[in-house]
Amino acid sequence: MEELFMNSFGRLFKLNIFGESHGDSIGITIDGCPAGVSLTNKDFEKDLSRRKGGDRGTTSRKEPDIQKIISGVFNKKTTGSPITIIFENTNVQSEDYNFNETPRPGHADFVAKKKFGNYNDFRGGGHFSGRLSLGLVAAGVIAKKIIHPVKIKALIEEAGGKKEIDNAVNNAIKANDSIGGIIECEVRNMPVGLGEPFFDSIESLISHAVFSIPGIKGIEFGSGFMSAKMKGSEHNDLFIDTNGKTATNFAGGINGGISNGNNLFFRVAVKPTSSIYQKQKTINLRTGKTQDLIIKGRHDVCFALRLPVVIEAVTAFVLADLLLIEQGIS
Amino acid sequence: MEELFMNSFGRLFKLNIFGESHGDSIGITIDGCPAGVSLTNKDFEKDLSRRKGGDRGTTSRKEPDIQKIISGVFNKKTTGSPITIIFENTNVQSEDYNFNETPRPGHADFVAKKKFGNYNDFRGGGHFSGRLSLGLVAAGVIAKKIIHPVKIKALIEEAGGKKEIDNAVNNAIKANDSIGGIIECEVRNMPVGLGEPFFDSIESLISHAVFSIPGIKGIEFGSGFMSAKMKGSEHNDLFIDTNGKTATNFAGGINGGISNGNNLFFRVAVKPTSSIYQKQKTINLRTGKTQDLIIKGRHDVCFALRLPVVIEAVTAFVLADLLLIEQGIS
Amino acid sequence: MEELFMNSFGRLFKLNIFGESHGDSIGITIDGCPAGVSLTNKDFEKDLSRRKGGDRGTTSRKEPDIQKIISGVFNKKTTGSPITIIFENTNVQSEDYNFNETPRPGHADFVAKKKFGNYNDFRGGGHFSGRLSLGLVAAGVIAKKIIHPVKIKALIEEAGGKKEIDNAVNNAIKANDSIGGIIECEVRNMPVGLGEPFFDSIESLISHAVFSIPGIKGIEFGSGFMSAKMKGSEHNDLFIDTNGKTATNFAGGINGGISNGNNLFFRVAVKPTSSIYQKQKTINLRTGKTQDLIIKGRHDVCFALRLPVVIEAVTAFVLADLLLIEQGIS
Amino acid sequence: MEELFMNSFGRLFKLNIFGESHGDSIGITIDGCPAGVSLTNKDFEKDLSRRKGGDRGTTSRKEPDIQKIISGVFNKKTTGSPITIIFENTNVQSEDYNFNETPRPGHADFVAKKKFGNYNDFRGGGHFSGRLSLGLVAAGVIAKKIIHPVKIKALIEEAGGKKEIDNAVNNAIKANDSIGGIIECEVRNMPVGLGEPFFDSIESLISHAVFSIPGIKGIEFGSGFMSAKMKGSEHNDLFIDTNGKTATNFAGGINGGISNGNNLFFRVAVKPTSSIYQKQKTINLRTGKTQDLIIKGRHDVCFALRLPVVIEAVTAFVLADLLLIEQGIS
Repeated sequence: MEELFMNSFGRLFKLNIFGESHGDSIGITIDGCPAGVSLTNKDFEKDLSRRKGGDRGTTSRKEPDIQKIISGVFNKKTTGSPITIIFENTNVQSEDYNFNETPRPGHADFVAKKKFGNYNDFRGGGHFSGRLSLGLVAAGVIAKKIIHPVKIKALIEEAGGKKEIDNAVNNAIKANDSIGGIIECEVRNMPVGLGEPFFDSIESLISHAVFSIPGIKGIEFGSGFMSAKMKGSEHNDLFIDTNGKTATNFAGGINGGISNGNNLFFRVAVKPTSSIYQKQKTINLRTGKTQDLIIKGRHDVCFALRLPVVIEAVTAFVLADLLLIEQGIS
Repeated sequence: MEELFMNSFGRLFKLNIFGESHGDSIGITIDGCPAGVSLTNKDFEKDLSRRKGGDRGTTSRKEPDIQKIISGVFNKKTTGSPITIIFENTNVQSEDYNFNETPRPGHADFVAKKKFGNYNDFRGGGHFSGRLSLGLVAAGVIAKKIIHPVKIKALIEEAGGKKEIDNAVNNAIKANDSIGGIIECEVRNMPVGLGEPFFDSIESLISHAVFSIPGIKGIEFGSGFMSAKMKGSEHNDLFIDTNGKTATNFAGGINGGISNGNNLFFRVAVKPTSSIYQKQKTINLRTGKTQDLIIKGRHDVCFALRLPVVIEAVTAFVLADLLLIEQGIS
Repeated sequence: MEELFMNSFGRLFKLNIFGESHGDSIGITIDGCPAGVSLTNKDFEKDLSRRKGGDRGTTSRKEPDIQKIISGVFNKKTTGSPITIIFENTNVQSEDYNFNETPRPGHADFVAKKKFGNYNDFRGGGHFSGRLSLGLVAAGVIAKKIIHPVKIKALIEEAGGKKEIDNAVNNAIKANDSIGGIIECEVRNMPVGLGEPFFDSIESLISHAVFSIPGIKGIEFGSGFMSAKMKGSEHNDLFIDTNGKTATNFAGGINGGISNGNNLFFRVAVKPTSSIYQKQKTINLRTGKTQDLIIKGRHDVCFALRLPVVIEAVTAFVLADLLLIEQGIS
Repeated sequence: MEELFMNSFGRLFKLNIFGESHGDSIGITIDGCPAGVSLTNKDFEKDLSRRKGGDRGTTSRKEPDIQKIISGVFNKKTTGSPITIIFENTNVQSEDYNFNETPRPGHADFVAKKKFGNYNDFRGGGHFSGRLSLGLVAAGVIAKKIIHPVKIKALIEEAGGKKEIDNAVNNAIKANDSIGGIIECEVRNMPVGLGEPFFDSIESLISHAVFSIPGIKGIEFGSGFMSAKMKGSEHNDLFIDTNGKTATNFAGGINGGISNGNNLFFRVAVKPTSSIYQKQKTINLRTGKTQDLIIKGRHDVCFALRLPVVIEAVTAFVLADLLLIEQGIS
């Protein structure tokens, strides 16, 4: 049986992601980066560190993630050729996630077994999903340089329904449970005109990329779900100058699928981590009987804490792609 | 200056949409439909009628939308070749939407002028956006046949924040205003295994397609934004049989980006129609001064009423594409 | 059983071709044409006429091919939106090409039956192949405008091995046989830099497009097959100025897959028409016995006579695509 | 200035190639390989060795090319995830190919400078072209397993116009010159039905892939250029059984762009190596004056000797892609 992944994304700024837990490395190839962009290993430190810093509730035993740039850069500048960055899998997967018989609730164990059979280590447990996001963050570092001076900033706005994030996380740790979160993302210095209707509006592309991050349950732009309860007379953003600046920004910086120059704004919902320390119940696929399940290992209490930098990264490479397309046609 | 639209969607079940208000017709080419599917003009009546039926608050002066199948069907069966369906533009565009100087708030006038200049009639006013959805609905009719017995049903759940939809619409008509709405969509008889990670999860593809529909502000799958406030012990769906059926369905039928056999479920937020009868204020781009604006013509009071069949259509062709991909690899 | 055609070509200047003999029309959608290009029906007359003019040996009973532009043009200028051009199938297919049992030698009858089964009228006999080239020629008309001042000229250089083409054709008519031909194509005013290595060199793209034309058996660039017999000291083109002009042009205007500014030059081999008036032998697929076969209808004696304008057309849209790509990145 | 390479090829069996001489490694990612295919490092030895073995006239100072599989294989079987194979650049590029002022005749120096400017080491001299073919050969090893029992065999048929290849090569070495060659390729055990008209006929795809190999000047299928001189009554292949077997095979195993079950056959022309030991003349781009040029380093006398295994490789991955497409739709 074949497996067919869609490991590619983007039209001019293209990403190809590869790797799985049993392999030597995970990596990403970025094709279409302009030449002459300065790029060194040091450039990756900050965002990779932000990604690690969110694994609260776990013991920090993980080795540092060191990227190795194996093509596309010469004398600290991009050459314009594909840039391949690999991260070696140094973490030996000592726990063998053998859930063939007892699928973990909320996880992809069941669907992976049905879709991929036995050859493929799909997601390799919750840990591996996080590992592929290394590639996204690396691509984001490069994309952020290309879109300068556009500035992306994502923050976790609430966790477990509370704005006091540390408290919420600590309570979850004590309860051996997990919590979800909401992340807000704002993009400043947006040019007018990014987005390619009919099918590649800026919302379409950002949501497509955001939903590739595991654990995302919803996305809303500008006024989002609140707009459904508003009147047109309230919701319309009135223009206040001839550059397209508006008095309000319920549009979230987008009209007709195209950026309008006002800040881009969207919110993302992240579910609580599925792996928890508490005992759960599941079905034994072989016997058909319910049984107890305890998931060993270290569990992120609030998966959402890791994601702001990943949300920034995917937004960056979507905007980089749109910028290259728009530059090419204006 | 060039314009570059992304008028294509899909990998195996591929759509190409074309047409604008000044042209002869709008149309869509559907490539990849299997041969031997029965298809006649009558098959389109019901969904095209649902699409028209939602234009509340407008006088029903519009001629019927008659589709013409110009390729891909022979003896009432698809041949496997591309199916091209065109809808002639019989509605003379008597109102010339000349908003060069006075962009309508909430509309794409400003961004279109900046991005496309003067040659292109982008969206051609609120009416034309609706027109391109004819192509989506037509493609949906065909896709729904391919995915049988999978059944998609979308309903408007609230309008203007109220569940009494008729009341809410009538009040908006009286106030010369517009309201938004929320649409729920459920898909039954889902197979396990649709979705192509890493980048083409089922949420990524559905949201990509849904956000091509004008007016959509948000999408959430299963528990959506509510999941962010839940605990893992609450949110995990426990398995109750060996076929993957779960006791709850906060996952919305999806794990790891792949359908798990439980019903697919998602909600979509639609903003209030931007064109309203009320007088609004805008900037005159030439003079820089604020001035009054009245938008002539007939305005949908609740744009969301038209969209359930369009939401079903885009969901159908995303699932058709995923089904053809999955069939090819299993 | 599904059929999956690849009816799309191009990255920025994209073509989608549709239609078959049983359908209403054949047509082509051209996506990515810049806005502001002047385009009227009259622009198609010359090249469509050249295409018809080559059907020597047939009685000229065919109705004129009238194109109808149904989208993408407004006030005689392209809008930048997709341009869809359709040609109605007025020629009633009175002969029903039922070769299920007795496949015509040299034709696609056998493979089409095996690959597509009974639902699909693949190629619909030799006549229909010619019909799809209407779409190619139409796309070529538009592409030629975009690439101006680049000028493409294709000529039939020999037919049936002879340079006296009329004689060769007349002899074939008398013999109730058919002959092949060689077409040369030269492109002047070439810019430097068209071609996208690694996989989309200018030779790769031109040959890909040329081999979509039925009946093509070979292609060679510059010195072509002769280069295999030459020495490096003979074959290298020496530079004679600082603009890249060379003393000889064995390279055919291409180095490293990229245009070098000298004229592009290539030759194409066309096989003799497979349908001939002579009686042939074939196998009856049902009985397994050899039997005689006479193919009714009107047969082109020298199919190659039709093709120079088609060769120009496909070269034009390949160069248009490369030009748009190159412009976007410089 | 941006560079935009097309480093991707294929629809279901997809290749992404990366790397340049200044980088750490060259590599290739193969996406879409079915799971469960046995694959070890040993599998690459034979074809990589054939590739090296053809560098006649050079002193064999090159280190072995060792591939490293960094993803997609587990327990000696493919997982179905992308397979990334890298080759470290151990050969220090001691000669700095600085031809800014004095472009080498027959090489891409001039066009690369014009297209890519100074940041990109396009092709990095003749040596680097050869290096990227490592990736092609590696992909070919995998593709050959997938298409089994289809067997591809390419052989050099003549060099420098002679069939006595060793003599021809030795004479060229003595003359400090280079010679071209002709390679024949035959594919046995072909299934019926590979090829995706309209635009992706089997000839279109094979020629597209073959012309990505540097130095190729022409390709012909079956009777090729000879068909242009033949009559239809001579050229048509008559069927001799109900499985599509024909008495002759001027079609080269292809009708209507689709494989017909008879052996696939094509010939490829390779130009003489552009770098020769003899002194040549070129233009100094700065001064505009003609000057002598001697190209240091080791030069392949007959580049074509390296290519049979590369021709097999590209043919293999084209057929693998077509096979996966055909399997998916039948």
